[in-house]
Amino acid sequence: MASEYKTIKGQEFDRAAFESLLRRKCFLWQSFEPYGAVKGLFDYGPPLENLEAEVVNIWRDHFIRHEKMMALKCSMLTPYEVLKTSGHVEKFADYMCKDPKTGEILRSDHLIKDVIEARLKSDKEARGEKVEEAEEDPKRKKKQAKAAKGAVKLDDAVRKEYEHLLATLDDCTGDDMGALIKKHEIRNPTSGNEVEPPVSVNLMFQTQIGATGKEPAFLRPETAQGQFLSFQKLLEFSDNQLPMASASIGYSFRNELSPRSGLLRVREFLMAEVEHFVDPESGKKHPKFANVRDVKLPLLDRKTQNAGNTTPTVTSIGEAVDSKLVDNETLGYFLVRIMLFMEKIGIDTTKLRFRQHMANEMAHYAADCWDCELLSSYGWIECVGCADRSAYDLSVHEKATGTFLKVREPLKEPVKIEEWQANLDKKKSGPKLKKDQAKVEAALKGLSQEFKEKLSLTMEKQGKVEVPVPEMESGKVELDKDIVSFVKETRMETMREYTPNVIEPSFGVGRILYSLMEHVYWTREGDAARSVMSFKPTIAPIKVLVVPLQKDTRFAHLLQELEQKLDDDQLSFKVDQSGVSIGKRYSRNDELGIPFGITIDYESLEGKGFTLRDRDSTKQVRASLDEILEAVVKMCKGKETWEDVAKRLPAFEGKEE
Amino acid sequence: MASEYKTIKGQEFDRAAFESLLRRKCFLWQSFEPYGAVKGLFDYGPPLENLEAEVVNIWRDHFIRHEKMMALKCSMLTPYEVLKTSGHVEKFADYMCKDPKTGEILRSDHLIKDVIEARLKSDKEARGEKVEEAEEDPKRKKKQAKAAKGAVKLDDAVRKEYEHLLATLDDCTGDDMGALIKKHEIRNPTSGNEVEPPVSVNLMFQTQIGATGKEPAFLRPETAQGQFLSFQKLLEFSDNQLPMASASIGYSFRNELSPRSGLLRVREFLMAEVEHFVDPESGKKHPKFANVRDVKLPLLDRKTQNAGNTTPTVTSIGEAVDSKLVDNETLGYFLVRIMLFMEKIGIDTTKLRFRQHMANEMAHYAADCWDCELLSSYGWIECVGCADRSAYDLSVHEKATGTFLKVREPLKEPVKIEEWQANLDKKKSGPKLKKDQAKVEAALKGLSQEFKEKLSLTMEKQGKVEVPVPEMESGKVELDKDIVSFVKETRMETMREYTPNVIEPSFGVGRILYSLMEHVYWTREGDAARSVMSFKPTIAPIKVLVVPLQKDTRFAHLLQELEQKLDDDQLSFKVDQSGVSIGKRYSRNDELGIPFGITIDYESLEGKGFTLRDRDSTKQVRASLDEILEAVVKMCKGKETWEDVAKRLPAFEGKEE
Repeated sequence: MASEYKTIKGQEFDRAAFESLLRRKCFLWQSFEPYGAVKGLFDYGPPLENLEAEVVNIWRDHFIRHEKMMALKCSMLTPYEVLKTSGHVEKFADYMCKDPKTGEILRSDHLIKDVIEARLKSDKEARGEKVEEAEEDPKRKKKQAKAAKGAVKLDDAVRKEYEHLLATLDDCTGDDMGALIKKHEIRNPTSGNEVEPPVSVNLMFQTQIGATGKEPAFLRPETAQGQFLSFQKLLEFSDNQLPMASASIGYSFRNELSPRSGLLRVREFLMAEVEHFVDPESGKKHPKFANVRDVKLPLLDRKTQNAGNTTPTVTSIGEAVDSKLVDNETLGYFLVRIMLFMEKIGIDTTKLRFRQHMANEMAHYAADCWDCELLSSYGWIECVGCADRSAYDLSVHEKATGTFLKVREPLKEPVKIEEWQANLDKKKSGPKLKKDQAKVEAALKGLSQEFKEKLSLTMEKQGKVEVPVPEMESGKVELDKDIVSFVKETRMETMREYTPNVIEPSFGVGRILYSLMEHVYWTREGDAARSVMSFKPTIAPIKVLVVPLQKDTRFAHLLQELEQKLDDDQLSFKVDQSGVSIGKRYSRNDELGIPFGITIDYESLEGKGFTLRDRDSTKQVRASLDEILEAVVKMCKGKETWEDVAKRLPAFEGKEE
Repeated sequence: MASEYKTIKGQEFDRAAFESLLRRKCFLWQSFEPYGAVKGLFDYGPPLENLEAEVVNIWRDHFIRHEKMMALKCSMLTPYEVLKTSGHVEKFADYMCKDPKTGEILRSDHLIKDVIEARLKSDKEARGEKVEEAEEDPKRKKKQAKAAKGAVKLDDAVRKEYEHLLATLDDCTGDDMGALIKKHEIRNPTSGNEVEPPVSVNLMFQTQIGATGKEPAFLRPETAQGQFLSFQKLLEFSDNQLPMASASIGYSFRNELSPRSGLLRVREFLMAEVEHFVDPESGKKHPKFANVRDVKLPLLDRKTQNAGNTTPTVTSIGEAVDSKLVDNETLGYFLVRIMLFMEKIGIDTTKLRFRQHMANEMAHYAADCWDCELLSSYGWIECVGCADRSAYDLSVHEKATGTFLKVREPLKEPVKIEEWQANLDKKKSGPKLKKDQAKVEAALKGLSQEFKEKLSLTMEKQGKVEVPVPEMESGKVELDKDIVSFVKETRMETMREYTPNVIEPSFGVGRILYSLMEHVYWTREGDAARSVMSFKPTIAPIKVLVVPLQKDTRFAHLLQELEQKLDDDQLSFKVDQSGVSIGKRYSRNDELGIPFGITIDYESLEGKGFTLRDRDSTKQVRASLDEILEAVVKMCKGKETWEDVAKRLPAFEGKEE
């Protein structure tokens, strides 16, 4: 529930005030506003764009460099055939219901949720209970209000049924939702009309490559397919060694039917995806698992959820893998690395949990899946999916294209293999089979061991056999014993061929950034108007605020020297020379999350150095310019904290007003 | 000409060998190969993806941070109306000719170039001159060969005409090309058929947003439009101060009719674009121009090109701006910053020039344009466009949407303005004009000063006037003097409103990366098979190669210690433990451009440190691990060179075989 969400200081979270800050300080806005903003598309302004760049650089360092992953950049434009094979043409879809009278299109799950929530709210009102205003979207609020039409009290049994329905809605198929709409007489709240049954609508953006119209294509819905189709190159680059991992940071697209919830559901978004390829017979062990065994994670498994419970169990990943709560070491290792990444960028880890997917909820390719969810005022939101895609993708692409997408490795010991073979005498069969020769040959090759053995017995008895050849018009062919023979042959196999399994941690960068912004937002005690964005210095969009005490030309040379040195240290900074008080200038730049402030005052003119202010504590120290810059550089690299600096450098008691 | 292109060491450049290296070392490949590669789409493998990330980070630092630009991220999906207004729906197009018999579609300029080049080649052959094999694309080669059909000698006049035609082809309109095709009897070389006249084909990828089909959209052809439509936010973020600049690093799309030349002409590509907004009345001065006045640039202006000359003049940017060779300081400042960026990432600046656009060659929005071109084996290629887009974009979007896209600033001194006003007496006009009231009011407001003055005279004489009202069916209305009066009014204007002009440096990241790769490629003297990619340490995709002398378990703990320390220093590295000689291992990793090698040998076991090898010189030093790592960190940050390190640390005479 939104209203349960608290800031890091335990304050009520005021989403309207928070959103006003984001707008005022140009963190983001809806794209193409002069043309009437387009839903589900957002522009990032300077603070958020820089924040994203910092977070992406940490991701690169934490995953690609540290784990020696192979960085890949694949195309967004993707031919139809690729996504047909992967299953996205068929299954990357949402259910929608059409209002036949108005033509309005409603997402089926949203429709059900809106109507049932409105009934529960109306029931609460009728029973005189306090109703929370969780929903900020005015359009949706209006719909709910319309659906309610005055307070109506529900039976206890119905109320319980509704609550259960909402809790399990994610697990519903299209038919399930159709049944719910019928059973609970759910209508379009705007018009009051009955709606048509749910139909599946594909969510990919379609286009075409070239001028001829012969090359239909989509914008990719995930970066993964490009990585799978680069499998042979990756294997080459890895000198044929598994496990190996590729990683892509790139855009994907989803043509949402009715986007809501700001940055949490958008039509074009940055993803960071890892495909970790592993030998399925290795037990999916991970060489570095021992290093992380004792790290504790909040895990909410499928069983617990089915029992209606949402409290995660805090368990060491070692225990979780030992007890098979988490399937294997590789999956477990990644859950830990995800947690460490979130800590590194400043996520409040008390607002983080790992939730296992329910059976029906999983993507069509997944064998198992754990989401890293972050709590925001919108509730728990999936920000990273960590799925075991098994051998699904490589297998289907190999089948569709005939390209070898397996690993071949020498067996430690050669294996003796006995197999039935069908040997066609081509000299003799040619004149008889003519143009069907190749079809018959392929059919013989494709016969199972059991069937070949059976045919060998028939041949021995009858001197001829009938072989099914689906490719021929007749569907079969009769072959004499002088044309084909069935023999058991023995050979030594020295190589093993297998399709690797894939573990895929997949990060939604925009959702992480949004959650992060909520997590670092708070207001100064006793003054709700003075809000602060406590970005860690390592990721803060701007590192230093420079404030000359007053507009005074005598400060000019010191300011110039300071600017030059900040530039030499490659520190981003902002100079605020406006006429308002120092306190006001600090305060309005706290909203941008600038971690450090350097003040030039009259003592600076006397060679007594500058003051350095810490955003979160508002404490200050006074020191020489070089000492201050050294401290700032170290803190921005995460090598020192303000506490370290405050111990080294003398405190300064300034007033902020 | 391709064959004139030399490596940095002055060697012949062997493009086939270079491309083989790129393939072998997984720098890049065509996307979706298992499905039959799609033309104009490329995947970047690990070396190139990491190179791009390093180059983009330097760009961010060099432009966004250092110049205090406002970083923006705008949507790629762009509504139809936006690109209709910007002129892209009409003008972002190439001309193509259709072969009416085969249905084949040919890009008109390519068609002309192919046929004329083939005739010139055939002429050369007929005259017994050596013919250069510049073209690597086998399909195109075949076309040229077909077009030639044996050696045919040309008249001197015709040969000259053809040469002039090729030199000025970029400057041709569609009609021009149609005329050329007719005049020179140019046919489809593949079929020998006549082709239809050139028609314009739009190059944007079209799609639609949402499920209703009511929101047609394109993938953006440039990042600029999103930046213009964010103008109001940018102005707010800049506290209403100009000049200001925004910068976007993002993807754009171009649905090429027939992509060629590898990375140089692709369908989806990363751009880095700056929009620098400036007051047109400021003379487009730049506050930091004085700092760069003396920097010398190779400038090839329009006049020189028109005279058929392609040798740039090396001029200081100060002189160039003073003499109006370069229009203004801001444009000049950016040309210098572009040059410095290219130096920073390791472009060979002897292969760089700035070329001014010819009149017809400029984009539809540009007032002036200089390209930064880099020389590669494909010739001189535009890698950065630096255009003065004047007030074009903001003006058209303001007109189309009614959104205020200007700057308002207080005038230093209020200005007295005398203006004719048309005052409508609404009480009296209402009953007469009825529903047309608003239309008439708008028409009166829109009349020019001259016309209003004229009407005031007419009114004085005749007591009534006729006013054109285009919105009314009658097209005009007659008004009496009791309904409308024309008076000269005086008011004090305290604010000034103006549309900023925009200077736009626009970088094609892929083209820069490709040129860079050619610029750093060379082969060891006396061994053309040993090629080297001399990436600067600051941008090298992998920083360190670790080579234990032999497979020996005694090296294990040293290797582990070294790996840990490299990781602590956030240095990317590769361990090569394969059985081949040290020399071979160095050699094959030189192809990845790894700048430094650290060898663990038997002396390392005795505590005598490690050796550090420089890729370019193959020289080595021997020192303690900490000394080596300090040197590597400094060199990778660009704070020291190998020469500095070789002076500090004792040389080691190792052999590489």
